[in-house]
Order: sequence, then C-alpha cells, then structure tokens
Amino acid sequence: MGLVPVTTTGLLLQTTQADVLSEIRNDALLSSSLWVNIALAGLSILLFVYMGRNVSTPRARFIWAATLLIPLVSISSYLGLASGLTAGYIQMPAGHPLAGEEVLSQWGRYLTWTLSTPMILLALGLLADVDRGSLFTVIAADIAMCVTGLAAALVTSSLLFRWLFYVVSCAFFLVVLYGLVVEWPKSAARAGTSDIFGTLRALTIVLWLGYPIVWAVGVEGLALVQSVGLTSWGYSGLDIVAKYVFAFLLLRWVAANEETVATAGSGTATAAAPSDD
Amino acid sequence: MGLVPVTTTGLLLQTTQADVLSEIRNDALLSSSLWVNIALAGLSILLFVYMGRNVSTPRARFIWAATLLIPLVSISSYLGLASGLTAGYIQMPAGHPLAGEEVLSQWGRYLTWTLSTPMILLALGLLADVDRGSLFTVIAADIAMCVTGLAAALVTSSLLFRWLFYVVSCAFFLVVLYGLVVEWPKSAARAGTSDIFGTLRALTIVLWLGYPIVWAVGVEGLALVQSVGLTSWGYSGLDIVAKYVFAFLLLRWVAANEETVATAGSGTATAAAPSDD
Amino acid sequence: MGLVPVTTTGLLLQTTQADVLSEIRNDALLSSSLWVNIALAGLSILLFVYMGRNVSTPRARFIWAATLLIPLVSISSYLGLASGLTAGYIQMPAGHPLAGEEVLSQWGRYLTWTLSTPMILLALGLLADVDRGSLFTVIAADIAMCVTGLAAALVTSSLLFRWLFYVVSCAFFLVVLYGLVVEWPKSAARAGTSDIFGTLRALTIVLWLGYPIVWAVGVEGLALVQSVGLTSWGYSGLDIVAKYVFAFLLLRWVAANEETVATAGSGTATAAAPSDD
Repeated sequence: MGLVPVTTTGLLLQTTQADVLSEIRNDALLSSSLWVNIALAGLSILLFVYMGRNVSTPRARFIWAATLLIPLVSISSYLGLASGLTAGYIQMPAGHPLAGEEVLSQWGRYLTWTLSTPMILLALGLLADVDRGSLFTVIAADIAMCVTGLAAALVTSSLLFRWLFYVVSCAFFLVVLYGLVVEWPKSAARAGTSDIFGTLRALTIVLWLGYPIVWAVGVEGLALVQSVGLTSWGYSGLDIVAKYVFAFLLLRWVAANEETVATAGSGTATAAAPSDD
Repeated sequence: MGLVPVTTTGLLLQTTQADVLSEIRNDALLSSSLWVNIALAGLSILLFVYMGRNVSTPRARFIWAATLLIPLVSISSYLGLASGLTAGYIQMPAGHPLAGEEVLSQWGRYLTWTLSTPMILLALGLLADVDRGSLFTVIAADIAMCVTGLAAALVTSSLLFRWLFYVVSCAFFLVVLYGLVVEWPKSAARAGTSDIFGTLRALTIVLWLGYPIVWAVGVEGLALVQSVGLTSWGYSGLDIVAKYVFAFLLLRWVAANEETVATAGSGTATAAAPSDD
Repeated sequence: MGLVPVTTTGLLLQTTQADVLSEIRNDALLSSSLWVNIALAGLSILLFVYMGRNVSTPRARFIWAATLLIPLVSISSYLGLASGLTAGYIQMPAGHPLAGEEVLSQWGRYLTWTLSTPMILLALGLLADVDRGSLFTVIAADIAMCVTGLAAALVTSSLLFRWLFYVVSCAFFLVVLYGLVVEWPKSAARAGTSDIFGTLRALTIVLWLGYPIVWAVGVEGLALVQSVGLTSWGYSGLDIVAKYVFAFLLLRWVAANEETVATAGSGTATAAAPSDD
C-alpha cells in the first residue's frame, strides 16, 4: 500500500471543498444567501448576550442560554456551507428535471437542523412548561425529520426513493406538529405563558411549513426553480425569521416577564399531581 | 483544480449507490428481507394511528406518540438500505473467512438503531416511570452500543479491531441490560405497570440478545453463514418482532389501561419524595 | 456501471485505514499515546465495576452507571484511532505552517467527545442536582462545541474558515463554562454536594481549557508543535486526568456518601417549589 492512493483520496476531498468554495465565490446570489446569515447570526449573538445581562432567575437564565444556542448553531451551519465543508455535488437520477447534471447540494443544512431545531423546540417546551416525555418525543421526531430530509437530498440512485424519504420526513413533521398544535398549548395555558407561546408557535408552524415547500419546488425536488442560488435564498430567508426573529421575540419576552417564568414550576412536577385536582 | 476530479468523486458515490441498488434487485432473498419490513412498517404506522384515536390523557398520548416513532424510524432505515444510500462494499481484512472479498455491508442499520432503540427504551422507561438520570444513562449506553457496532462493521484494517469493537459494544449492552433487568422493574412495580412492563422487557431482552448473535455468525463476524441475504433476514426477522410486535403490544395495553398510565405520575417527582414514606 | 469504480472506492477507503494503521505502528510516540489510553480505560472499567459492588441506593447506582460510561466511551474512541477507522490524511490549506503537506488528522477524537463529554456533564449535573432545562442546555452547547471542533479540524479549503470554526467552538465552550461556573454551584450547595462538586468542577474547567490550547499550538492550529505524536500525547494526557482520574474521584465519593446522594431529591422537583420558601 504505497502513498499514491492515499494522496488521491486526500486530493479528491480537498478538490471538492476547494471547488465548492470557488463556485460559491463566483455566484453572488448564492454567496449572499450564506454571508447574510453569517452576519445576522453574529449580530444576534452579540445582541442576545447584551439583552440577557439583567436576567437573574435560574429558569429565565436557562431559557436565555438555550435561545442563545440558536444563532450559535446557525452561524456554524453557514460557515460549513460557505467553506465548502458541508456542501458537495450530487448527480441527479433519471426522471429528475436535472437528471444527469451535477447539482450543488447543501447537505450540511440538514445536519445542522438536527441540532438547531431541537433548540427551538426546547425553548418552546421550557416556555410552555411541558412534561419531559412530551419534550423527548417531539424532539426525537424532529431529529428524525431532519435525518430523513438529509437522506432525501443525498439519494441519487432513484427518484422514487428521493420522494419516499420526503414523505417519511413529512410524517415525522406531523408528529412535531401534533405536539405544537394539540398538546403544548394546554401546558402553556397552565403555565400562564399562553400569549408569547401562541405567537412563537404560530411563527414556528408557518415558517417550518416553508422548508418542505422550498425543497419540493427547488433544485432538489421538482426543480420548478432551477437556480441553486434562489433555492438557497429560500432556505436562508426562512432561517432569518425562524431563527433570529424567533429568538429575539422570545428573549424580549423573557426579559420582561421574569416573574411568570420563575413561578412556572416544572411540567414533570405538575404532571405528577393531577390527582390532587 | 479543474472539474475532472469532482466529477470522479460524484461518479464514485453515484456508482456505489447504483451498484448496491442493482445487487439488491437481483438477489430475491436480500430484497425480500428489506421490502417485507418496509411494508410491515407502513402497515404498523396506519394501524397505530388508528389505535390511538381514542387515547385522550396527556401521558398516554405521549407514550402513544413515542411508540409511533418506532415504525417511522424503521421505515426510514429500510428505505435507506433498499435505495443503496446506507449500504456499501467492505473488503474484509486478513484472517476473516471472506478475507479479500468485497462484502455488502448494511452499515445504515447501525445508524438507524441509534435512533430507533432509544425510542423503544424511552417507551419502556415512560411505562415504568423511571427517573430521568436512569433513563438518560441507559439511553446513552444504548447509543454507544450502536455506534461501536457500526465501528465493528466498518473496520477493514485488522480483524482484531473488528472483534475488540464487538466486545466493547457488548459491554455497553450490559449497562443497558443492568437497567432493564435490575433497576427498572422496581420502578414499574411502584407505577403499577409491572405486568405489561414485564412482558415487553422480556421480549426486548430476548430479541436484543439476537442481534449480536446474528453479527457473530453472519458475514460480518465468523461468517458461519456466508449469505448476505440470510444475514440480512436474521436482522430483519428480529426487527419485525422487536419493533412492530413490541409496539403493537404496548399500544394495545395503553389504550386499555389509560387510568393506570394517567395516575402513574413522574419518576422524577417520585424519586424526590422517598423520605416521606 | 461495471465493478471497476466500486472496487476503486472500496480500495481507497481500505487503503486509508491500512495506511494510517501502518503509520501509527511505525511511530512509537503516536502509538504509545493511543495504547496507554486503551490500557488505562480497560483498567478503569474493571476497577469501577469493582468499586460499585456495594452501591445500593437507586440514585447512587445511576451516577455510578453514568460514570462507568466514561471509560467505556474512551476505550471505543482510542480503538477507532488505533485501528485507523477514525483518522485520515488532511492536506493543509495555503497559509498554514504545514500548507500542502498531508497531515494525519485524528478526527475521531471530536466524534467521540460528542458522546463522552456529555457523560461527564451528566455525572456533574446529577451530582449537583441541577434542573433538566439547565442540563439539556449545557449538554447541547457541549455537543455543538465538539461538532464545530470537528469542522475546524476537517476544513481544508481555507485557513480563515478553520479559525472561524475554532472561535465558534470556543463560544459554545463559554456557554458550558457559564453553567459550570455560575449556575451549577448554587444547585450543588442546595443538594449538599458542594465539596465533591467543587473539586470535580475545578478539575473539569482547568483540563477542558487545555484542549483548545493543544489544538491551537499543535499540528491542526499554529503548528508550533509540528509532531503528530506530541500533539496526540497532548490530548491523551488531558484525557487521562479528565476522564479516568475524574471518574475515580467521583465514584470514590459516591461510594462513601450514599446517604447524601440518596436524599438529594431531584432538581426538577426543587425548582418547582421555590415559592414555598
């Protein structure tokens, strides 16, 4: 086993990263969709640290810390895409509108959504004071939704399997929606956080519905939009509202309502005492 | 850095997927071991949604939702294998009965077990109303068991390391067994769910012991069974009982015993109050 | 799609593993940095099982089980590196002191830190009896710290992006430190475990600061130290104290203070009742 094949492997990986990096640099639309998010995530981190300076009760401080993780994970995600580390070329299967062409796939988005979306659900769950079983289940379904989305993006052997994964990912999404729409509002009402929970929940549901739509119409799906840059902006635009605006609204409310948050007790304990009613 | 090496990488990945897909299509035994599970997982999802229609208490609904994730993760896993996305060719190291041969490795099984087996343990843990530290520890050991199993399957440099990973994976399994056999039955007794917990625990322990046995005798281990299709059926058969039958028994019990589930309170709260006894 | 390209892919992967394995075998410094940890982790497992034989209360037993996972994950990590499965060659980008050279990257370290460091935080969190929101947030930040560290190690397209990921990883570390330094000591004081928590916390903070320093001065960063073996020993030395000595101190204390551990109740329940004060 000489050094030649090793150098080849190294070179191939190296070449993909460098090539993606140079494609992104030469495409202003694509490039801006990434760097706008890096800039906004950076500003959000600074702003949120500043906003949290007077939060003092333990429960409120940890909702604040969980929220701070949202732009931190987002900046990591976009650095991965912009550096070419978590993007690559995918050859679309027969039957796809771009069949046979090499399409730039930003597969890193799915990978970091598995970390960032649980943070959003955690923040919502802590706010609504839901019980641990519920939180665990919704977050598990959410992670599975992201992983099967990643699979849908990476399958190149068959168009059928791309859409089968899409359907399964949507099925996991329904489990998440079930928690957000049916169960968690009841907990939020008990915790006295219905107003802000309702706002953020509506924001989350509407925006999260946007992601599968961008997938379906963008280069990865039906390719009604055939521009990689425009598809990327679809995701990036949703991220801006679903992540930074979401986190800002949440933190502003926590800072102004520490009392409510502090006395909100824990879902687990609440769940333990329904027989007292 | 021209386009040639990039196309090569794309082509190599593309070729592996397409090649695995075609090998699976041409091997009826292998193919059936995957598609039977896709069909059964799909049917289970429909059946379980139907069975849950009258479950109304929050705790019971979330055991139901956690259980629903089991066939959803399973169908994702088998779609990944059948599409060739999460399978590939491994050249066995010197000393292995199939040394030097290219063996089809279904490495995606290990990856999805890291998601599906925690769901099973979560459902069992919620049922037995165990405390959060216990649940966290058992699930962490379970994930580590799957990850080291993946490593055992992928090591090609040395036969010794394959079996070292096998032994470490079994050590993590012992931590899981310790929770299931020694600690959790006590919690189940306190929660009044001993009957169903005992049944499902026995099912889980017996079936989960089957997986390392299939590994050891199948193509990845001693290769006493040298057929990829037969090894695949070994795992698939275990999955059918450990996943769909398990989930069915659990849901049927939850639907019939909502009262018990609802009053079972939470392990955390119970653990906090033992001094009151 | 013939068999030639598939064999090529298989061969490339196979060659990388075999090549790394042979480089490690021929470098005594590098080799010893891995095998010393495999030996110590193995001994720790045996010792810890022995130490836990008389631990009988549920809470203490699960702190014990969580601690046992630390050397188990560590031995898996070092087996991955020593077998060549989780190490590979990275070509450093322009501007790096080793630019253009193929450097052995032990990327598997980052991958297993995502499993082992949460176990350490879990053990500390259970000891300090912190509430679940806090535990969740600190562990999420810790996982993100490890994942962005992995990204910093793998980026080869640009030196700037390597250091951007380094900075983001350090930002996640600050969230972890915030939990360890500011919030958790208060919980430990309430739980009556301040002494041991203080010792282990100090140990963790001091040692964990060492990892980014090794990265910065080692072959992956500024390459002030240009030896792969010496860089590897930097990490390995830190691991020995941060993992085995840490776990030993914790277990010895748990075995001697079962009473305190048993009555410590749960953070969640405590958090639910502050209004009673």
